[in-house]
Amino acid sequence: MIEDKNPKRTPLSELGEFKLIEHLTKHFEITQTSTIKSIGDDAAVLDHGDKQIVVSTDLLVEGVHFDLSYVPLKHLGYKAVMVNLSDIYAMNATATQVTISIAVSNRFPLEALEELYEGITTAAKLYNIDVVGGDTTSATSGLIISVTAIGEVKKDKVVLRSGAKPNDLLVVTGDIGGAYMGLQVLEREKEVFKVNPNSQPDLSMYTYIIERQLKPEARKDIIELLEKLAVTPTSMIDISDGLSSEVIHLCKQSKVGVDVYENKIPLDPQVISTCEEFNIDSTTIALNGGEDYELLMTVSQDDFPKIKGNPNLTVIGYITEEERGMHLVTRAEEKIPIIAKGWNALNNQS
Amino acid sequence: MIEDKNPKRTPLSELGEFKLIEHLTKHFEITQTSTIKSIGDDAAVLDHGDKQIVVSTDLLVEGVHFDLSYVPLKHLGYKAVMVNLSDIYAMNATATQVTISIAVSNRFPLEALEELYEGITTAAKLYNIDVVGGDTTSATSGLIISVTAIGEVKKDKVVLRSGAKPNDLLVVTGDIGGAYMGLQVLEREKEVFKVNPNSQPDLSMYTYIIERQLKPEARKDIIELLEKLAVTPTSMIDISDGLSSEVIHLCKQSKVGVDVYENKIPLDPQVISTCEEFNIDSTTIALNGGEDYELLMTVSQDDFPKIKGNPNLTVIGYITEEERGMHLVTRAEEKIPIIAKGWNALNNQS
Repeated sequence: MIEDKNPKRTPLSELGEFKLIEHLTKHFEITQTSTIKSIGDDAAVLDHGDKQIVVSTDLLVEGVHFDLSYVPLKHLGYKAVMVNLSDIYAMNATATQVTISIAVSNRFPLEALEELYEGITTAAKLYNIDVVGGDTTSATSGLIISVTAIGEVKKDKVVLRSGAKPNDLLVVTGDIGGAYMGLQVLEREKEVFKVNPNSQPDLSMYTYIIERQLKPEARKDIIELLEKLAVTPTSMIDISDGLSSEVIHLCKQSKVGVDVYENKIPLDPQVISTCEEFNIDSTTIALNGGEDYELLMTVSQDDFPKIKGNPNLTVIGYITEEERGMHLVTRAEEKIPIIAKGWNALNNQS
Repeated sequence: MIEDKNPKRTPLSELGEFKLIEHLTKHFEITQTSTIKSIGDDAAVLDHGDKQIVVSTDLLVEGVHFDLSYVPLKHLGYKAVMVNLSDIYAMNATATQVTISIAVSNRFPLEALEELYEGITTAAKLYNIDVVGGDTTSATSGLIISVTAIGEVKKDKVVLRSGAKPNDLLVVTGDIGGAYMGLQVLEREKEVFKVNPNSQPDLSMYTYIIERQLKPEARKDIIELLEKLAVTPTSMIDISDGLSSEVIHLCKQSKVGVDVYENKIPLDPQVISTCEEFNIDSTTIALNGGEDYELLMTVSQDDFPKIKGNPNLTVIGYITEEERGMHLVTRAEEKIPIIAKGWNALNNQS
């Protein structure tokens, strides 16, 4: 009925996810004194006494964010929690609680939901968080999981996306591109399975990248490491949509430019070999593949001695003045502009 | 694929919503010292300094919780916020922030989402809350809205479901049954419209109950009233699933019994007349119809002088010892056991 009564129709795909959120939320005014940071960071920041509360929420939709033909439900439950904890850690906060809401069609038996909750329980135990609420309801089709994560951080330790300064170091944790290449392998096996259901794929050479896709770990350890090293990043974001998209977020919100060095981007050997096998450029994957849930941060040059040589932290570039723009410095020492082609749930759908 | 690999299949409808949540969440352990109250109340309670934070979350699914053939999107956005604020007020807390996540199929143009957000914005303004985050993503079908509301309350003012004591008064706000009867009228008009799309229904005699269904108001005013009257209820819950279901929740969690007096249940004249028209017993509707978002509370007899005669608060019964059981005292002074037939999203689905 909506279709009939509204003469103007703008397809959602015209805007993309970020512009859509921006467009829809621009009218929200902040009136509560306890709201320190609202929409536009990894999590909202609320002021309560000497600590600040951070809140983040994510929705995972079957057929959009996951494909149950190769994602075990246990892993899905685990990942749904990780995706949200990652946002909390990206604020330099400690995650403390989550709420989980699930809408499920009656195609799923109870045993399927038990598997899903097993993954959620495992995640909660390992990451020391409490599941404090939620809602379970039916859906007309598919499975939808909505998670809200809550964390806390001391007032002077909260890290926003907007604090990067010229000359800061751009630092990434772990290695990137693995989750995307794991997805490519799983998608290929699904196609093979369709043609020949008896095929027994040998996935042993892809274990790392498949695990990166199916069972990502949020970097709680990095927040603990940063505290131990006495380093407070000047800005931070988690890598859910791909490096280039996150670099752009940091720079735009900090009003700075950046030079990212292609030869510094950390790639696992399995990502490189699988990219060769699939005949894809590994830098393209590192820049645009999503779902690695590593952290991207900027660190003052003064802190370089503290992070130097740490295997968890790789310096991949330098923050510049805004007017210098955002560039990738290639292995051939060419400077090319960084453009977001990040994983975009709204454009991925036809 | 889940269907194939799992030999045991228990249909979700066998359990119902409450048992399902209980079953799935029983393994969650609480490890955070800041978690005061977890799953099992209207909202979770988290300890932060001199105030406590309350968090509640709800998922609304098209085709399960709403039918867009007669629910305007603006009203839907408003209602999605109300449903969650109601849970916060049921803790005797002040709602301060919400996060909104939306999964939407590309059947919806941008203008539809704008309407939805207009309702959300209106609710936020009127109830003085901030929209601090969310997620917008695509869905393979339909529209799903997930809202998490956050509130705060002084430590000594938080009201749980579990505090009712024998001899307390059972008190309900406003009047009940209206939202359900409004839905019946709307459903009937939808059927008429299917047969004759040119019919121009006269709904003027149903304005109150239709508004109760389409645009419910969470009882923020009651929380303010209770503060003004210096009354802290001993227990409280919001009426989302129907009076009988909520009475049972309060009594079970407080380990008490109750006598509810049929002739005291507040009904609007429009509910009574529409029940007569539909040939349904109005007490059945009051007990089992849902979505009124009134508050049900227990109040110490000592506080009776403070609430006596207040048009917003109606005493409908008395709390008894647990072994006395839960009963409705009919107009004929018969005592019949209260059984939950509440609105149940999982059973409603075929």
